[in-house]
Amino acid sequence: MTSRRGEDALTAKIAAAARPGKGVRVGIGDDAAVIDLPRGRYVVTTDTLVESVDFLRGEGPFWIGRRAAAANLSDLAAMGASPLGYLLTLGLPPGNGARFAWRIVEGVISKMSPYRAALWGGDLSRSSSTFVTICLFGRSTRPVARAGARPGDRIFLTGAPGAAAAGLAVRKRRVGKPPSRSDRAYIDPEPRVAFAGELARRRWATAMIDISDGLARDAHRLARASKVRLALAEEAADALRDSADDFELFFTASPTCSAAILALGRRLRTPVAEIGRVARGRGVTLGAGRGRAVADRGYDHLAS
Amino acid sequence: MTSRRGEDALTAKIAAAARPGKGVRVGIGDDAAVIDLPRGRYVVTTDTLVESVDFLRGEGPFWIGRRAAAANLSDLAAMGASPLGYLLTLGLPPGNGARFAWRIVEGVISKMSPYRAALWGGDLSRSSSTFVTICLFGRSTRPVARAGARPGDRIFLTGAPGAAAAGLAVRKRRVGKPPSRSDRAYIDPEPRVAFAGELARRRWATAMIDISDGLARDAHRLARASKVRLALAEEAADALRDSADDFELFFTASPTCSAAILALGRRLRTPVAEIGRVARGRGVTLGAGRGRAVADRGYDHLAS
Repeated sequence: MTSRRGEDALTAKIAAAARPGKGVRVGIGDDAAVIDLPRGRYVVTTDTLVESVDFLRGEGPFWIGRRAAAANLSDLAAMGASPLGYLLTLGLPPGNGARFAWRIVEGVISKMSPYRAALWGGDLSRSSSTFVTICLFGRSTRPVARAGARPGDRIFLTGAPGAAAAGLAVRKRRVGKPPSRSDRAYIDPEPRVAFAGELARRRWATAMIDISDGLARDAHRLARASKVRLALAEEAADALRDSADDFELFFTASPTCSAAILALGRRLRTPVAEIGRVARGRGVTLGAGRGRAVADRGYDHLAS
Repeated sequence: MTSRRGEDALTAKIAAAARPGKGVRVGIGDDAAVIDLPRGRYVVTTDTLVESVDFLRGEGPFWIGRRAAAANLSDLAAMGASPLGYLLTLGLPPGNGARFAWRIVEGVISKMSPYRAALWGGDLSRSSSTFVTICLFGRSTRPVARAGARPGDRIFLTGAPGAAAAGLAVRKRRVGKPPSRSDRAYIDPEPRVAFAGELARRRWATAMIDISDGLARDAHRLARASKVRLALAEEAADALRDSADDFELFFTASPTCSAAILALGRRLRTPVAEIGRVARGRGVTLGAGRGRAVADRGYDHLAS
């Protein structure tokens, strides 16, 4: 008899659903995947969502999967890279069986497919609480790092900061349901892959980061990496307070690109605003002139 | 002020400890890593270790890290690939702070470094129980998959199956301590990277798998992928019973390579034995002639 047990049966089902990726020689179901790659510059990232930390207890598995995919796509977008393929790891409590796992996988695939990212492989594990880890690979001839902002550059932010926080407040009363207009920004955000790809391709962005840990924290990270002061305009005060969980892009560019960036945003239907300028010095400030110092606070994955 | 909080401080410490990898353009501390790769065939795998499932509660973080690295190196070895770089994700309970996380990282780096695998990046996350996920990249011009065994091939197994199970029994009374001779096979096994690399490079192995889920389960997987019957000799009975958690290689090769394979094992100090032959048909059998059917049992990551 060669009957397949739970894990092998699910793996076979996932293998059948995965899009055949470009260059894939050995896909899901072996010890590792084998991929033929052309010479080039590759971008790799990994992001994990843990139950009760990164998503609500009782959340629907399909939406957990889509949110995990969005978080990884946003990290890749922040480098200006195009998705290529990914490995998916699920940690599953004993009570949640193959059906639950399968729905997470369906969610991940549904979110990744429009970006042509192929599921290359992964791992299934028992765990006391649900977690989803994705390791995402992409390609970029001109990746945009956090270092690179120059004094005189302008500062930009996509989206409507605070939308995710507002969505989370709504989601707590609607957990597990399909997204509504008022909680989609939290549970099913659309990462800025196309917009960021254009910024990188045209060499407009000098430095970029996504603000999923909050604008204040991530602005400090970019300022440290670039060794500059980020002078945010007074209008950024709301975004500094409310921006945790937003998969939005915070980036810098020469003032000569400013009008073109705003036009690109209109063309790709990506809201984008100029919110400050880069100055000599260190740290993050708010308001005109020397401004007030902005504290380096926000989400810390190690805080208790 | 640009003081660094817990997560950013630990990330900076990890970045300083990571070996600069070949082709790394942007390493730890950005949204993603950027790596320049030459054209070629790449192998990617991911494996997760969860507390109380894949390692004992109270295990020392350094040894958790080394074991997680070994599990991933073994998966890559089973393809005959050479390690290149990896992403590391840690899930950490609130009680375990930066010191605990740092010791896991030190363990992972200490195990990966002899194989010249560079730490490219990763993720830190809160979690109700500790877990370690590694996503490991390697390269192989001639990867060995599970499919490829042909009737007439001989079957081989490395190591002393059951050593890990015996080691685990000892480890339960010594959890958290440095490995001893009697529990090293469980807590700090040495994956067969060099031996497997030679098998692949010389095109001796026709199919290969690592038996970390137990010989019976993994033999069935190889038999299914290759569409053959694996006729194990009577001497494999002990290995079929005791082989869970062994990071050993199970592979097939033409009988003309048999003597050379045993000689390679002596040269690389890798114990290896011929334990059966590949026949037409399906499934796994034990004993001479048609033998007795071996059940497809072993570790199932989805079983409750």
